[in-house]
Amino acid sequence: MKLYFAGSIRGGRADAALYARLIAHLKTRHRVLTEHVGAPSAFPTVEKGMTDRDIWAQDMAWLRESDAVIAECSTPSLGVGYELAMAQTLGKPVFIFHNAARGPLSAMLTGDPYYRIFAYDSEEALLAALDAALERI
Amino acid sequence: MKLYFAGSIRGGRADAALYARLIAHLKTRHRVLTEHVGAPSAFPTVEKGMTDRDIWAQDMAWLRESDAVIAECSTPSLGVGYELAMAQTLGKPVFIFHNAARGPLSAMLTGDPYYRIFAYDSEEALLAALDAALERI
Repeated sequence: MKLYFAGSIRGGRADAALYARLIAHLKTRHRVLTEHVGAPSAFPTVEKGMTDRDIWAQDMAWLRESDAVIAECSTPSLGVGYELAMAQTLGKPVFIFHNAARGPLSAMLTGDPYYRIFAYDSEEALLAALDAALERI
Repeated sequence: MKLYFAGSIRGGRADAALYARLIAHLKTRHRVLTEHVGAPSAFPTVEKGMTDRDIWAQDMAWLRESDAVIAECSTPSLGVGYELAMAQTLGKPVFIFHNAARGPLSAMLTGDPYYRIFAYDSEEALLAALDAALERI
């Protein structure tokens, strides 16, 4: 499958290493379109010389091309919230993962019946939930 | 006009007092449907006994009812990102305000030609931009 992995970039890079491990795990069986989300740099796309319009156009093209969206939502992010709503408008299956210790997730996500949301308490539990989610698509 | 004011709740309340001042300013000439966003508490809706499903249903009803969306986006928020994308899907005029000193705004917002975005460097400039924006609706 072609997966759109969503994680915070300008909202904060505290979880960038976690995103990289999740992307590496997903890549053993799938194609991840948005691999740059796990890059070690703060602004991986800007560093490649892309304008904000380029980044948006590329990400929207990848969102349309994807078979499913996997979002790690422990770091609040305007871009990820936008992507989740746009994924819903496009009818894509969306799986949201959230570290329960980081406080409550937005009610606009937890209250919306469209999303399948998993609160995790360890990376082992997160990976197991991720694998189980992908088997259901 | 009926305005949907969007600001961070669970993403962080660092700007809650600013939201309250902006809502008070807007209320001198308009109706603000989402007045709770400026409340001093951390979780204004949960404190009223609302479930996440109630909060989402109420906010989506207000979004559909609104004539325009005003978003203060200096604190990253999944819910605000979601609301901005849903507002676009509903065809609502959307005005985004962002404190330039707080770092770059998400490329999913700045790169999307749908939004009218204002970076401000003082609250005086923010209020002037807000008034000018509302005159253009």
